[in-house]
Amino acid sequence: MTYQLHYWPSIQGRGEFVRLALEAAGAPYVDVARGDPAQGRGLAAMEHYLSSPSVRRPPFAAPFLVDGKRVIGQTAAILQYLGPRLNLVGASEADRLWTHQIQLTIADLVAEVHDTHHPVGASLYYEDQQPEALRRAGEFRAERLPKFLAWFEAILQRNPGNASASVPRLVGRRLSYADLSLFQIVEGLRYAMPKATRRALGKAPLVVALHDGVTAHRRLRPYLESERRLPFSEEGIFRHYPPLDA
Amino acid sequence: MTYQLHYWPSIQGRGEFVRLALEAAGAPYVDVARGDPAQGRGLAAMEHYLSSPSVRRPPFAAPFLVDGKRVIGQTAAILQYLGPRLNLVGASEADRLWTHQIQLTIADLVAEVHDTHHPVGASLYYEDQQPEALRRAGEFRAERLPKFLAWFEAILQRNPGNASASVPRLVGRRLSYADLSLFQIVEGLRYAMPKATRRALGKAPLVVALHDGVTAHRRLRPYLESERRLPFSEEGIFRHYPPLDA
Repeated sequence: MTYQLHYWPSIQGRGEFVRLALEAAGAPYVDVARGDPAQGRGLAAMEHYLSSPSVRRPPFAAPFLVDGKRVIGQTAAILQYLGPRLNLVGASEADRLWTHQIQLTIADLVAEVHDTHHPVGASLYYEDQQPEALRRAGEFRAERLPKFLAWFEAILQRNPGNASASVPRLVGRRLSYADLSLFQIVEGLRYAMPKATRRALGKAPLVVALHDGVTAHRRLRPYLESERRLPFSEEGIFRHYPPLDA
Repeated sequence: MTYQLHYWPSIQGRGEFVRLALEAAGAPYVDVARGDPAQGRGLAAMEHYLSSPSVRRPPFAAPFLVDGKRVIGQTAAILQYLGPRLNLVGASEADRLWTHQIQLTIADLVAEVHDTHHPVGASLYYEDQQPEALRRAGEFRAERLPKFLAWFEAILQRNPGNASASVPRLVGRRLSYADLSLFQIVEGLRYAMPKATRRALGKAPLVVALHDGVTAHRRLRPYLESERRLPFSEEGIFRHYPPLDA
């Protein structure tokens, strides 16, 4: 079964968290909105699910996954669904719950990163909310980023699976989708706020080691160098606006 | 088994979404932080899970649920865990996924409601970010609130279980935890932004009917009139600041 991933075609955005899981697992998937309209793909195929009254259970927003008759929205829910199917989560209910809980906390962090450049609203340009963005980004750098990273570092420290491991993992000893998402957080933050991120990661060596381990993954390394990996830009979640870094 | 709910003792906040599920099911639970320190309850009991290095899988924030050895954070994850145990979700995997997806969208809305009065950050008072709050709340009233309510209304319209039902439900024909949460959204929005909410709900009659149906629930009605139901206030998620309503 080929999974259909639907997401805005020109940015990594929230879709990238799903892409990383599909790519790491070597799963067959189509990135629908980046496809050819002549083959029934492209943005119109995505808009169908968001707008057509014929879709009984429409997602609120992209990304969403179509798997046969199933249409699943919300990044964390998609990853929870894919986790067991892609062998990217532990087998026990406790491990699955914990992995999902971590992913939901990552989702909260992603929303806060977005709001550093859009504290008033997504319908306005960054340039039209720059004074607010300066204040919100300052709060984020001073309060929120250290708090989130301290939590990730703490749960890595407390995972007994990391006691004798060369590469730390968030849950147990095996790679999970949450590890891939935390990798992406580090990548994105380093792009968006290189100065603040360097300082904050200085206190989170296990987070850095987790990131570096994912970078070397045998399927992800070629993916990250491929054209399928879109570049970071000032259209996505992680945007490099120098006034917001310090 | 008595569930332990841990949440800030003086506000409804995110904890209320969990309380409503426990109350509607008549489940045995202790609201730990509101309890007596002499009995091992109170704020210190909650802080233990958030701060003690002895907690192997600590929640990032309250609310969290303790069920035996399990510690589960993130409101939507708590409800997903409780749903089958409290008979507040359908039996099929598809229904459970859909209910969770709706709950995650409600969580996004809750975060946006919070940010109408705290667009810069939670570490500052509302009074210290009022100009930003005025802009963000304006965007919320004009763009986000109508968009969320239109989605809830659409999925209520498209739920075939509602075709012949007197009280609409979000998923199938039976009450789910997502229905309880949407009820709470309506309650909270009516408190925080009565003018904007009246206008917006004028276009969402099924959302109003769902709300009214929950109000009449045989266990919730006495709960809502009890002292266990904390009042809304300017300390929680839904705050009534008249300049933010219009």
